[in-house]
Amino acid sequence: MDPTQIENALERIRAALEAGEVQSAIDSLRELRPADRAEAFVDLEDDEVAALLPELSPRTTARLLTELEDQQAVELAETLDTDRLAEALDRMAPDEAADVLGDLDPQHAADVLAEMEAAEGVRPLLPFPDKTAGGRMTTSFISLPLSISAAGAIELLRRVEPGSDTPYYLYVQDMAGRLVGVVGMRELLLASPEAAVQGFMKSKVNFVQTHDDQEVVARLMSRYGLGAIPVVDDQRVLRGVISHDDILDVIEQEATEDLYRLANISSSDLSIDSPVVTSVRRRLPWLYINAVTALFAAWVIANFQTLIAQVAVLAVFQSVVAGMGGNTATQSLTLMVRAIALGEQGARQAKRTVLKEGLIGLLHGVFVGSVVGLGVWLWKRNLALGGILAVAIVGNMLVAGLVGALVPLVLKSLKLDPALASSVIVTTFTDCIGFALFLGLGAAFLPQLL
Amino acid sequence: MDPTQIENALERIRAALEAGEVQSAIDSLRELRPADRAEAFVDLEDDEVAALLPELSPRTTARLLTELEDQQAVELAETLDTDRLAEALDRMAPDEAADVLGDLDPQHAADVLAEMEAAEGVRPLLPFPDKTAGGRMTTSFISLPLSISAAGAIELLRRVEPGSDTPYYLYVQDMAGRLVGVVGMRELLLASPEAAVQGFMKSKVNFVQTHDDQEVVARLMSRYGLGAIPVVDDQRVLRGVISHDDILDVIEQEATEDLYRLANISSSDLSIDSPVVTSVRRRLPWLYINAVTALFAAWVIANFQTLIAQVAVLAVFQSVVAGMGGNTATQSLTLMVRAIALGEQGARQAKRTVLKEGLIGLLHGVFVGSVVGLGVWLWKRNLALGGILAVAIVGNMLVAGLVGALVPLVLKSLKLDPALASSVIVTTFTDCIGFALFLGLGAAFLPQLL
Repeated sequence: MDPTQIENALERIRAALEAGEVQSAIDSLRELRPADRAEAFVDLEDDEVAALLPELSPRTTARLLTELEDQQAVELAETLDTDRLAEALDRMAPDEAADVLGDLDPQHAADVLAEMEAAEGVRPLLPFPDKTAGGRMTTSFISLPLSISAAGAIELLRRVEPGSDTPYYLYVQDMAGRLVGVVGMRELLLASPEAAVQGFMKSKVNFVQTHDDQEVVARLMSRYGLGAIPVVDDQRVLRGVISHDDILDVIEQEATEDLYRLANISSSDLSIDSPVVTSVRRRLPWLYINAVTALFAAWVIANFQTLIAQVAVLAVFQSVVAGMGGNTATQSLTLMVRAIALGEQGARQAKRTVLKEGLIGLLHGVFVGSVVGLGVWLWKRNLALGGILAVAIVGNMLVAGLVGALVPLVLKSLKLDPALASSVIVTTFTDCIGFALFLGLGAAFLPQLL
Repeated sequence: MDPTQIENALERIRAALEAGEVQSAIDSLRELRPADRAEAFVDLEDDEVAALLPELSPRTTARLLTELEDQQAVELAETLDTDRLAEALDRMAPDEAADVLGDLDPQHAADVLAEMEAAEGVRPLLPFPDKTAGGRMTTSFISLPLSISAAGAIELLRRVEPGSDTPYYLYVQDMAGRLVGVVGMRELLLASPEAAVQGFMKSKVNFVQTHDDQEVVARLMSRYGLGAIPVVDDQRVLRGVISHDDILDVIEQEATEDLYRLANISSSDLSIDSPVVTSVRRRLPWLYINAVTALFAAWVIANFQTLIAQVAVLAVFQSVVAGMGGNTATQSLTLMVRAIALGEQGARQAKRTVLKEGLIGLLHGVFVGSVVGLGVWLWKRNLALGGILAVAIVGNMLVAGLVGALVPLVLKSLKLDPALASSVIVTTFTDCIGFALFLGLGAAFLPQLL
């Protein structure tokens, strides 16, 4: 977390590498905590990585692969030969290892898997898509048979020596492997040794299914404050467990996705650190779409070109009308997208909410339009200009409130992401309607404007 | 989570209330899980709440107060008389009770506190601001003396009967109350009974201080995957514990805040469900600021009014230049704000990143400008118009990339929130520069345009 600490370690690593002391460089890297190591590691130059990598222990390599971002982890994995990668993956949590394997070329992944000792923990995770409960869960959890006693469970726990990433809950399965209950370590600790787990387990268990979307899982865990949630298949057989720190990543990812989509960045794995070529390619499509809608708005203005030649001052203020609509719409849109994302906006209240946002847009329009209209009247000494500007602003901000709240709801009802494309659609509306309203009023009151 | 379940419960509650069967209405409410109850409760009309409230048990009231949003919880608390509120608060987690008390009128809060039995757990939490570690922590944690054995710790645990919201870790304090170690329930379970806690506790403990910002805490817990983190004061005396579900709220809150601020909504407790008056008042200031900047951009255009009267077609395309700059800038801005929020963007790489975004803007400008310029040349049969449009787009998108990345960094270095006001500042730049570039080029190439 401490940037100077990472900075200092980087300096020591570089100095050691220059002096040819690879082991001392590794020691400096290992002094950092795993998450910080990953950050330092990505700052190294390619030749520095090449010098360091062959000397890293499988354990340190495993930690690095765990902490790096997906894209970076795969790049690192691809530079390792099959044996060394298998050794490192063996030391990772099964879900993290599966993530790395899933991003590799399939043939390479199969070769690595064949070399792995812990392949049986990882293999069941491979078929699940990344952003589902199955893709997020780990198979390293502890399950108890229904017939066990508290003492037996503790004995079992002692034998498996759970790692630090194993959830703090024990899941109880029946003979068919179906999830029938959950026991916290706390309850186990407090139970009398001979008590049957069946007697004190909690049998009303929250669970999700392997194919559930990660966002649904996150919403459920956050809503009910769960530290971990079991994942079952269609037969309710326990397949894995998702724990709270996995869900933090999901919540951050989903927030990033919404934020990006409202800014017309459709790829949520893009960041400010992405390479130039990737950034240009992935951000360009939405800029082209924006250009098309901008030209459409320009076409609206083009219909009033002779009017503008007569009353050029209209060209000065047309963007104010469009812009104020855009700003109002962005507010309504963002509030609606966030409410949908947090599960606070159902279809029930939809109509009332849209009308309410329309009312708010209208009121904002009256407040802003009157002040701006008055100001422009005084500035340009033209009452008609101030008047039509005020009216156009009121009208466009009313539309903006309605459309801003409506578009995400419509996208959602079409089973599309409410954040995706909303802002383009909405600002196209506010631009076109803003220009048409203001210039149309200008045409109607031409004699007064001249 | 299941909307139909809530909907059905609401119907049953209403039917029961109409039939005057308050107890049956309460039973229907209690069949829902606490988080769902809160959602159903806020959908009730005032007279329905008034009928239900006097009959709710202190425990059910406590659950409701815990699950409601802050604002709603306070409104509910204010309708309860001092005794009943005190009874309910006694049954809440100390940090949740402190939150409610902190939002009440100070005199009312003092009266309620005087009636409470659990006041001593709540009182130490009251001085801490809401969004700090102190404001987020709970005092209901379990601490162990340094000298205790594993068996002694289990005995102590049995005596205090920890509630379900108590973290899964036990904190070890020295004689002065200073935090010296942490023991997981798992380790306690696996330790031999006579082993001293001092021998197997982890003495390298992550901790935060009471005055730390909640965002710092969230970042730390998410980065290192912590299930709970102890909070200490300046003397390293243990004061409280923050657990993973508190931090989920923080992460969602901070994401909401960034999203809102980029959309010029400065108050993060606003939502699409806020009352009209609150919404109008809180969202209006930024709309006024936007109006001022829009008028400034209009003033830029006003300088070219005689040019526009001669070549009205310029008024058709000026907004395309400004808009494409705005879109490019929004992308850079959003990526930068998010990177800063996730702690991925330090001052180290700042200069390189800004230049890179400038390069990306330039490349995007070339791609978009050439296509739009070509299209407009063919549309309006005017080569000079297409040419100056293309050049102005390239120039404005270059500026947009630079400014979009730079502004959040500058705001951050001034210790301001990088999300707040960035989008207004940046789009003011891209509007003004876009208009000036395009119309300036128009003036320079006037003979070719006519």
